[in-house]
Amino acid sequence: MKIIVDGMGGDNAPQEIVKGTIKAASELASTEPDVTVSIIGPEELIGNCLKENGWNGSNIEVIDATEVITNDEAPAMAVRRKKDSTIVKALNLIKKGEADALISAGSTGALLAGGLVTLGRIKGIRRPAIAAWFPKLHNGGTTLLLDCGANVEAKPEYIFQNGIMGAMYVEGVKGIKNPEVRLLNIGAEETKGDELHKEAHRLLASGSINFTGNIEGRDVAVTDCEVVITDGFSGNVFLKSSEGAVLAVMNRFKEKLQEGLKAKLGALLAYSKIKELKQIFDYADVGGAPILGLKGAVLKVHGNSGEREVYYAIIKAIPYIRNNVTQMIADAVTQNEELFKTDSAEE
Amino acid sequence: MKIIVDGMGGDNAPQEIVKGTIKAASELASTEPDVTVSIIGPEELIGNCLKENGWNGSNIEVIDATEVITNDEAPAMAVRRKKDSTIVKALNLIKKGEADALISAGSTGALLAGGLVTLGRIKGIRRPAIAAWFPKLHNGGTTLLLDCGANVEAKPEYIFQNGIMGAMYVEGVKGIKNPEVRLLNIGAEETKGDELHKEAHRLLASGSINFTGNIEGRDVAVTDCEVVITDGFSGNVFLKSSEGAVLAVMNRFKEKLQEGLKAKLGALLAYSKIKELKQIFDYADVGGAPILGLKGAVLKVHGNSGEREVYYAIIKAIPYIRNNVTQMIADAVTQNEELFKTDSAEE
Repeated sequence: MKIIVDGMGGDNAPQEIVKGTIKAASELASTEPDVTVSIIGPEELIGNCLKENGWNGSNIEVIDATEVITNDEAPAMAVRRKKDSTIVKALNLIKKGEADALISAGSTGALLAGGLVTLGRIKGIRRPAIAAWFPKLHNGGTTLLLDCGANVEAKPEYIFQNGIMGAMYVEGVKGIKNPEVRLLNIGAEETKGDELHKEAHRLLASGSINFTGNIEGRDVAVTDCEVVITDGFSGNVFLKSSEGAVLAVMNRFKEKLQEGLKAKLGALLAYSKIKELKQIFDYADVGGAPILGLKGAVLKVHGNSGEREVYYAIIKAIPYIRNNVTQMIADAVTQNEELFKTDSAEE
Repeated sequence: MKIIVDGMGGDNAPQEIVKGTIKAASELASTEPDVTVSIIGPEELIGNCLKENGWNGSNIEVIDATEVITNDEAPAMAVRRKKDSTIVKALNLIKKGEADALISAGSTGALLAGGLVTLGRIKGIRRPAIAAWFPKLHNGGTTLLLDCGANVEAKPEYIFQNGIMGAMYVEGVKGIKNPEVRLLNIGAEETKGDELHKEAHRLLASGSINFTGNIEGRDVAVTDCEVVITDGFSGNVFLKSSEGAVLAVMNRFKEKLQEGLKAKLGALLAYSKIKELKQIFDYADVGGAPILGLKGAVLKVHGNSGEREVYYAIIKAIPYIRNNVTQMIADAVTQNEELFKTDSAEE
């Protein structure tokens, strides 16, 4: 198994990317001897960075790529033009079967556009979706949320397929059989929502996955269900709103506990518990966000990712590949194909 | 000026509704002698409740209504059938010019359906919208968010008009001239979002209000802008997600500070500051959520509202009526009418 890490993606490249890769590769050398991690980027730069960080192992390979696609570039255009960019080159290696996954902190748009052009969609899948882990604030677990914004002009079938893809991914990487899937909507009853979500509800209720109905935004943070699906616009609004609210509360809390001696002393006494609280919101260990629906494993990590995020993304990509989630999705789509045959001419 | 309070709406009716009304009326007797507050509901029940709570003033009037519309009823049907319900009767009094506002903790759907049927829309307004105050978590102020779910099948013109209505409401009730308005979207750049939000952005940029561009969900809690607009589906998702996240963090925080003696002692020392933090999220004093776009002032308060919520909703409804926000909206719509003429045949 070969996992490629984009050495030039994100704000902290290549330094933190290389460090995270070294950390993962050091561990994998003994636990997963058949896994090779490749860093893609300018050969000399990456090579030097590996040396600086004291790397002397054998399970990191450097793949030379001279170009980088930045966040400012129009993704589709950049993907067409920059054939020797880290992202395009890595995707071509996956397509050729010479690598199994790409992890990148670079442009989400380029990963998506490049993935579509190079790898293509899984047969039957209408639109890929970005799936992100959202912390369960009541028990420290995580819920998979999709689509987080790959596809903002949604149709009911896309949302339905998000359900299939999310369920297969959770089953494949967490080993949870038949995970519970809910539809993010503006009311709990099946009659609630706009036409898009009402029709998606009808499809989901007829499909083969374990769909248990609507969920409202206020309940996602404390739900026990494993997958929450919606269209890319609402999903993105949900994710950013929740993150914004959590961050604002935490910052306000921090400020308040610095006002006056009594509060400061109180904060000092409660320090270890406050630290535990902060860890619940530490996204670093969840692993990357997969772009599901592509014929190959492509994972996005936050642009500001550091060593830990990269390390966890590598480690957590292994079951994604080993359990062949891409094939699981393809099979599940086939199983449900009659539910979205009507519109398939458009594909 | 006459403000009608629905004596039978919400979980705590009539007790808390009557208490809140007494609190407001007692104060208004000296500060606003021309304001009468009416409670609508079964005459004997409300009369007894006023007596029980020691009311002996003269500026509360009881209006008899024998029926109540519950949350379980289909709103449009209930509004047609229950002519003697608190909501329908109160709306008819506003229509006849015998009252100026209705405040209710009852069915939002019935307020909306009843408002449309009885009062009708302001000339030129395509769809009413529910506007709610959202706390600014960085400075204790509030931002007006609309639409929070009145209208889930949106068009760009509706979102544009939400901007007009929100700006006029904030100007009318807070006295802020030319308040800053932003569009909730999935990216800051004007090219971001689905077609609906991109077209809304174009309209907003051409209109007469102080539109300053897109805002992402993560920034709303800490924005300085006065009004955030979007479609009813996204608005509802935003509001509930943020509330859910805040609540989950606060609960988790409370739990953590009860784990062990040191944390408990710390919490005790920091108690006054923690209390201040909780007050930022106390929505009781913001006033009700106006259903904007109707020819008359209709305000919804939370179904679980207590005395304080009702009191503040009454007090804060006064500038809404006195500054004739309904007329301000009508004028602003006229001023911008050429921007949405194209689609007006559909009205």
